[in-house]
Amino acid sequence: MSKKVVTLGEIMLRLSTPDFKRFVQADTFDITYGGGEANVSAALCNYGLNGTFVSKVPNNPIGQSAINHLRRYGVDTQFVARGGDRLGIYFLETGASMRASQVVYDRAGASIADVDASEFDWDKIFDGADWFHTTGITPALSDKAAALTLAALKAAKAKGITTSIDLNFRKKLWTKEKAREVMTGLCEFVDVCIGNEEDADLCLGFKAKDTDVTKGELNLDGFKDVFQQMKAKFGFKFIASSLRESHSASDNGWSALVYDGADYYHTKQYSVRIVDRVGSGDSFASGLIYGLVTGMPMGEAAEFGVAASALKHTIPGDLNHATLGEVKDLMKGDGSGRVQR
Amino acid sequence: MSKKVVTLGEIMLRLSTPDFKRFVQADTFDITYGGGEANVSAALCNYGLNGTFVSKVPNNPIGQSAINHLRRYGVDTQFVARGGDRLGIYFLETGASMRASQVVYDRAGASIADVDASEFDWDKIFDGADWFHTTGITPALSDKAAALTLAALKAAKAKGITTSIDLNFRKKLWTKEKAREVMTGLCEFVDVCIGNEEDADLCLGFKAKDTDVTKGELNLDGFKDVFQQMKAKFGFKFIASSLRESHSASDNGWSALVYDGADYYHTKQYSVRIVDRVGSGDSFASGLIYGLVTGMPMGEAAEFGVAASALKHTIPGDLNHATLGEVKDLMKGDGSGRVQR
Amino acid sequence: MSKKVVTLGEIMLRLSTPDFKRFVQADTFDITYGGGEANVSAALCNYGLNGTFVSKVPNNPIGQSAINHLRRYGVDTQFVARGGDRLGIYFLETGASMRASQVVYDRAGASIADVDASEFDWDKIFDGADWFHTTGITPALSDKAAALTLAALKAAKAKGITTSIDLNFRKKLWTKEKAREVMTGLCEFVDVCIGNEEDADLCLGFKAKDTDVTKGELNLDGFKDVFQQMKAKFGFKFIASSLRESHSASDNGWSALVYDGADYYHTKQYSVRIVDRVGSGDSFASGLIYGLVTGMPMGEAAEFGVAASALKHTIPGDLNHATLGEVKDLMKGDGSGRVQR
Amino acid sequence: MSKKVVTLGEIMLRLSTPDFKRFVQADTFDITYGGGEANVSAALCNYGLNGTFVSKVPNNPIGQSAINHLRRYGVDTQFVARGGDRLGIYFLETGASMRASQVVYDRAGASIADVDASEFDWDKIFDGADWFHTTGITPALSDKAAALTLAALKAAKAKGITTSIDLNFRKKLWTKEKAREVMTGLCEFVDVCIGNEEDADLCLGFKAKDTDVTKGELNLDGFKDVFQQMKAKFGFKFIASSLRESHSASDNGWSALVYDGADYYHTKQYSVRIVDRVGSGDSFASGLIYGLVTGMPMGEAAEFGVAASALKHTIPGDLNHATLGEVKDLMKGDGSGRVQR
Amino acid sequence: MSKKVVTLGEIMLRLSTPDFKRFVQADTFDITYGGGEANVSAALCNYGLNGTFVSKVPNNPIGQSAINHLRRYGVDTQFVARGGDRLGIYFLETGASMRASQVVYDRAGASIADVDASEFDWDKIFDGADWFHTTGITPALSDKAAALTLAALKAAKAKGITTSIDLNFRKKLWTKEKAREVMTGLCEFVDVCIGNEEDADLCLGFKAKDTDVTKGELNLDGFKDVFQQMKAKFGFKFIASSLRESHSASDNGWSALVYDGADYYHTKQYSVRIVDRVGSGDSFASGLIYGLVTGMPMGEAAEFGVAASALKHTIPGDLNHATLGEVKDLMKGDGSGRVQR
Amino acid sequence: MSKKVVTLGEIMLRLSTPDFKRFVQADTFDITYGGGEANVSAALCNYGLNGTFVSKVPNNPIGQSAINHLRRYGVDTQFVARGGDRLGIYFLETGASMRASQVVYDRAGASIADVDASEFDWDKIFDGADWFHTTGITPALSDKAAALTLAALKAAKAKGITTSIDLNFRKKLWTKEKAREVMTGLCEFVDVCIGNEEDADLCLGFKAKDTDVTKGELNLDGFKDVFQQMKAKFGFKFIASSLRESHSASDNGWSALVYDGADYYHTKQYSVRIVDRVGSGDSFASGLIYGLVTGMPMGEAAEFGVAASALKHTIPGDLNHATLGEVKDLMKGDGSGRVQR
Repeated sequence: MSKKVVTLGEIMLRLSTPDFKRFVQADTFDITYGGGEANVSAALCNYGLNGTFVSKVPNNPIGQSAINHLRRYGVDTQFVARGGDRLGIYFLETGASMRASQVVYDRAGASIADVDASEFDWDKIFDGADWFHTTGITPALSDKAAALTLAALKAAKAKGITTSIDLNFRKKLWTKEKAREVMTGLCEFVDVCIGNEEDADLCLGFKAKDTDVTKGELNLDGFKDVFQQMKAKFGFKFIASSLRESHSASDNGWSALVYDGADYYHTKQYSVRIVDRVGSGDSFASGLIYGLVTGMPMGEAAEFGVAASALKHTIPGDLNHATLGEVKDLMKGDGSGRVQR
Repeated sequence: MSKKVVTLGEIMLRLSTPDFKRFVQADTFDITYGGGEANVSAALCNYGLNGTFVSKVPNNPIGQSAINHLRRYGVDTQFVARGGDRLGIYFLETGASMRASQVVYDRAGASIADVDASEFDWDKIFDGADWFHTTGITPALSDKAAALTLAALKAAKAKGITTSIDLNFRKKLWTKEKAREVMTGLCEFVDVCIGNEEDADLCLGFKAKDTDVTKGELNLDGFKDVFQQMKAKFGFKFIASSLRESHSASDNGWSALVYDGADYYHTKQYSVRIVDRVGSGDSFASGLIYGLVTGMPMGEAAEFGVAASALKHTIPGDLNHATLGEVKDLMKGDGSGRVQR
Repeated sequence: MSKKVVTLGEIMLRLSTPDFKRFVQADTFDITYGGGEANVSAALCNYGLNGTFVSKVPNNPIGQSAINHLRRYGVDTQFVARGGDRLGIYFLETGASMRASQVVYDRAGASIADVDASEFDWDKIFDGADWFHTTGITPALSDKAAALTLAALKAAKAKGITTSIDLNFRKKLWTKEKAREVMTGLCEFVDVCIGNEEDADLCLGFKAKDTDVTKGELNLDGFKDVFQQMKAKFGFKFIASSLRESHSASDNGWSALVYDGADYYHTKQYSVRIVDRVGSGDSFASGLIYGLVTGMPMGEAAEFGVAASALKHTIPGDLNHATLGEVKDLMKGDGSGRVQR
Repeated sequence: MSKKVVTLGEIMLRLSTPDFKRFVQADTFDITYGGGEANVSAALCNYGLNGTFVSKVPNNPIGQSAINHLRRYGVDTQFVARGGDRLGIYFLETGASMRASQVVYDRAGASIADVDASEFDWDKIFDGADWFHTTGITPALSDKAAALTLAALKAAKAKGITTSIDLNFRKKLWTKEKAREVMTGLCEFVDVCIGNEEDADLCLGFKAKDTDVTKGELNLDGFKDVFQQMKAKFGFKFIASSLRESHSASDNGWSALVYDGADYYHTKQYSVRIVDRVGSGDSFASGLIYGLVTGMPMGEAAEFGVAASALKHTIPGDLNHATLGEVKDLMKGDGSGRVQR
Repeated sequence: MSKKVVTLGEIMLRLSTPDFKRFVQADTFDITYGGGEANVSAALCNYGLNGTFVSKVPNNPIGQSAINHLRRYGVDTQFVARGGDRLGIYFLETGASMRASQVVYDRAGASIADVDASEFDWDKIFDGADWFHTTGITPALSDKAAALTLAALKAAKAKGITTSIDLNFRKKLWTKEKAREVMTGLCEFVDVCIGNEEDADLCLGFKAKDTDVTKGELNLDGFKDVFQQMKAKFGFKFIASSLRESHSASDNGWSALVYDGADYYHTKQYSVRIVDRVGSGDSFASGLIYGLVTGMPMGEAAEFGVAASALKHTIPGDLNHATLGEVKDLMKGDGSGRVQR
Repeated sequence: MSKKVVTLGEIMLRLSTPDFKRFVQADTFDITYGGGEANVSAALCNYGLNGTFVSKVPNNPIGQSAINHLRRYGVDTQFVARGGDRLGIYFLETGASMRASQVVYDRAGASIADVDASEFDWDKIFDGADWFHTTGITPALSDKAAALTLAALKAAKAKGITTSIDLNFRKKLWTKEKAREVMTGLCEFVDVCIGNEEDADLCLGFKAKDTDVTKGELNLDGFKDVFQQMKAKFGFKFIASSLRESHSASDNGWSALVYDGADYYHTKQYSVRIVDRVGSGDSFASGLIYGLVTGMPMGEAAEFGVAASALKHTIPGDLNHATLGEVKDLMKGDGSGRVQR
């Protein structure tokens, strides 16, 4: 029987310009749907698990289309509530070379921000579940959403379900002061914490040394220092971060660091030629969760996560459509790109 | 020197599905921008007038794209304020046969609804202007927008500028009670009023007899009765309404009725095969305004308006791209559709 | 609790040329997936029922995409077997005016034709089911598929489930002699039979009088005569046929005739401007099934079916994406096509 | 052995806006290639004849693409000369309802207008040929092109080959005075003349009575009168004209009148829902030529021509991709548009 | 007079996803047509030779479209037989970075596999021919196709025509045991053999040392060893292989090795940024054939082949649309990519 | 008050093939409009200046669309004359790797080449202007256009306006002898001269040493030598050149050299992954002009210009849509391409 992983979060309409067009040039938008937690659900379904996504969407054709998009890729959407005013939107133009990709958020007033605890029956949702995952985006959406996130984490812990969170600080949604207050409260109920140094600082107040996120260099020591602080305070079972070397909008280095309180594991680093990097963090999270929930050792789970997310960079859209076999092949070292006939 | 017509209202991002696809089938959206008053401005520029559009858009690439769209078609956008949170959006799927076109509005929180009177210098805006036009949509957006509309109408009247309003009741934006309260106040400053029986009832409380808008039949007597009541109460110089016979989403009858307090003029009726009927009311309003502001007699202005808007039905998007020459040719009777080489 | 309807059949990859292009002009194909029984499942899900589709697809990304397409629209695909060589394909160019739409089938060797009874656990599939539906296409695919169809019908009847079949003779798949032999055997286990005169003749050997399918005229007496013969031989509870008047590839008349062994009911006739008529028969069948399985009287079920399928003609693709509300509105008479805001 | 028909004329790059967009709205152009005589060649190849097209295109990738387009549909292009400055272009926006399709020509300086007689070896070109066809467009392009046309007609007659011309007056290319001078000289060498009343007047000076081309009514008596005058002066074997009733840009009536000096034959009239009417005259000409060169009686050839060109109206692009079988089926009366499976 | 090269093989419908989409994401397919031998024919026509392609396609619009595609690029298709059930299809998704391109074949039951020797008149086909080329794919399709290949090779040799084969082992089509049996028989009649080490092993049983095809490193000694064995057994005049260094799906190294029994020639190596690598092997083969049949020395022919195929990697589709001039310019060293105005 | 910069030149219709397709493969063209001077105007508007573009376009929808394109991006087009025969066209296929982008010009007979001095009122055009810019393309179009260019330069100098020219030799338009004669006359009135060594030679006769434009290496000494000669002869205030290292059609090095008669400034060099390099020279010119006209020191202006044009390489179309903020951020060193949320 496949493992059941529940995620809670927002699903947004993503409108992206085609063919490297800038917003001011666009005559059409490509439509897809995504969001940090939905992306995790879809990837897990893709690997054969039961991915159950909990959210709220408006009761109109745009909300229905978001649900349909997740159903298409196997996500269990039966617990998605209907109501509220609108589906959050984000506009994306994909960059190249020294021109960064640009995101314009239009998510205020989204249905998921206007959510009431009574709309979700956590007992039923968590029935048979093995893992619960959410991100720091969900509590940032509104106080109601933060309360819901806390309720979900508590319910999961009460049922003995492993919990994980991807810190994902979003400066357009809240201040670091507010984030630290809320996230600190949430992290008490978290087993696995994912986030880079910047997130650790902005969401939880842990300072790292000497990492300039606009440079393409890694600072592993800084990460390790922060991980130790995080472990000390919250007792996380695992702490993980993907590590990006941003050479340009077209080429990145990509690896990950994981820590179990005892050992650090730094994965293989991939040089990725980027097709679409949105959702790459989520694809790492889902890969790591897949590894851990199916019983891989920490290092193998990390390698699975980083291989999965390396592949994500080559796939358009928010979701990771790399198959289980493809991820495993890449872990074994076949990145030669020879045609598969 | 060409006439200057100022309009005030919202400009929205329009996202429509291509090729008769339903929302749940769409993989791309076609992008255009429109709104009742912006559509009027663009059409007037198309006929050679100075169309000045007053609005507010967010200071981001989506707002800029809306402005660019209007500039492309010659609209003077120098008085469009920048700020606020977002550009209103409407989603459109185009119907066919017995399947109606469907609009999903997502306009709450638009920049134009969060507007402050100090953002607009009406003295400068109306400098050299001949006409001011707005619709019943603008005051419905928010109390602030309603106040702005009233201020604009008063400023226009103070400068001796002809004013017009298209009633355009929108049930998603306000109740008829609220509409009647606000619109009655506005109409004191209006010279030319455009609106069908339904609008006259919902916006102003005038009851017409025996018109079932879901049927494809005209009730001219009902219209005349309402027009007389409107004249009696507000003293409008002209009252006009387009008249639609909705046979299906593909085929409509289309004409107009105009009244100057003395005579009624019912235009020629066109049988239109519909490509895109959104904005057809605005194209009638802009045609009528064009006729009146350039000195055509009422009947000729009405024929210009209805010919212009008949052509609009054949053009995708909100804006009417029929040229002055094409409208005049159609008024003269050439609707044969022979290839123009 | 919503009704559960099981269908059995083929799901094909549909490749259609855009914009009225002929095959020899096409540079791209629009992709969708469909098939008589899959179309019924999706429509029923759309109306809120549990539509369970049983089939077999190849274990490759094309087969997965077919499943994904059905999941997107809510179909329960858990019983679709994986294996075999290929997904059947059909190529479509959409006609206009006097140029008929053209279908090129490429379905030989499809996975569903190479099916083994052991691949399906009917006991589990029919658990909680209220209705079973299939068509005359499935048994025509291969002897194995015919055997599977018979097994399914028998299993359904054994469980007391209502069964229906849409005769759907396909001359490229088998001869009328073979069809009559197989279909006569199947019809013993059928409660509701759908099919026009031509199908009744080719599949079951019932002769109707004076209906020339290339003409746009109905011959109700011929239909009634055939229906009586069918009732007499098989004791069907209901016999139904959609009735098409083919004026051209762009315009059709559309109604239906239903018979319960006592009374005939001829529905309202719709004049449809066609966007895509493929799947219209299936949309009638699904509408009729919806009506009957939810307890509507025969006439109302027939009106539901014909309104649903009238709307289908306006929607691209095989599936009917008309909503329950839209079908009911059209039944009540609102075909005016006014924009729904 | 299939018949060989040689045509002489211009092949142009056609750039058309998609989806009923106006020029000022277009972001892409659909590419195809066409021209009166090329269209005839391609249609004849489509019916199984040897269509040899003689022209001149620039020695660049745009010229090559024009040749490739004709080769794709089987045209023999071995005698197309290379050189000169540019390929002529025409821009097209497709109209609908009362909005006419609009063509913007950009053909000045085309390679075919700068042509030298020495570039073509008529002896070789006409080897084995049964028919030669050109139009009034070719001599209108330039004096050199007119001289070439005359040379070709003379060479054809010298070889005993049947010759035909489609008068096709183009007011952007020459005056009626110039046209009459040149065309009268050419018609001495013509066996079959195709053209409507307007062409007969503008190209040859024959006056018809009471035909207003902007109205949708036929004036058969006027045509007959003109045909008699043409017969009297030039001794044409056959004179033919397609007859269009222009109800709108979306709907036309379509038939043809043919005269052999003794009898008139007026074909069946088709009501066509238009997808693309460009090239419909050429499709009539090619159908008529097919009929006559393969030995059909005049009336049958005319019916073939009018059925072929009725189908052309439903096909995008300049070329007629209706197959021989489809034309014959329509001649027999099957215009019901039922799906061909 | 240009050289005539005859090729024999399959032409398939290629359906590829646009914009790096995975199969499960695709809503449209781009259409083109290709196959190893057809690709060679088209490239040779592009260089000015007479490329005659021999095959069999179904007698339907899909088969016709395949022929049209080749005609468009100048291929002589007069000897392509019509009949059988279907055109083979292959589905392609283009990879990037570490995600490999993926091909899903759907070619079983293709017309060319069900071929009869009597359908081809080799005497007529080889009339005036200078070269005959085929690949190891054709005999792998079916026993009938293998017999036809042998017949063609024998007929070519009997006429003194140079023959070449590209080994191209396809594991989905046959086993190495079967391949070796058939290919060994065919190679007796072959003058020029093209194939890499893997093909040499699987098709002919020659073992190379130390080449791991999933690595990006060349093993020239292994190749030379195998080439000597091949020369020894079959007496080929030339043996050649392209040499690919697969760094990723986006970047490859590309060169070639040729052997005439005396000397080895290793060409310049190109670093290619890949747009579409399908057909690159065929573009090398056609370049080499072009060089040899037009009398270039071995080294120059090899450089022509490798330059031609380096350019192919930058062109979408199966066919190589690089012009003769472009290939020659690249051979001379201009790979700077400066805009050609 | 923002600076006003006037430019004079041609605006062309640009038709480009999508998705790396070659011309012979294209089924659609992407439409945009551009030209050296128009590109400069649009970029300056983008940075907040008043960009006034002076040109002539035909009085048809294609000419109108060119104007609309510039208006969309804020260009003041009120002085664009209407008339003449046609809009110049250029066809573009975008290269990759070792395949160069290819441009086919079709600009003969363009309206701007048939221009009369009386069509422009320079006094009014230059009212309030700070800068005048043109290129060596404009005088190359025709003698009339050369005379107009001279008149404009003289008028600008008479008004004390700074003038600049981008030499831009176009070998399809004129010979170097003619260019030298005309350009030498124009340069008397020029303050800022932009052009590489090749342009300096072909347009003005200055010889540089050892620069092979087909190689990817810079020869700064050669440039400096030429710049000194240019300064000596014409007394330019500034001389500048962008410096391109053409590694391939996909990857270039990009920097610039500026000289003020005293010092040389060589900017930072960018490694650009190319999306569309057309218009990159114009984007450098506009960046440099922006810097100089707003008072930046030479080095800063040069860095602004080269950063702006580095970004241009990543944007499709002729125009540079990089914003002021983006250029400044890149100047400061953030080329990491991290997503901007």
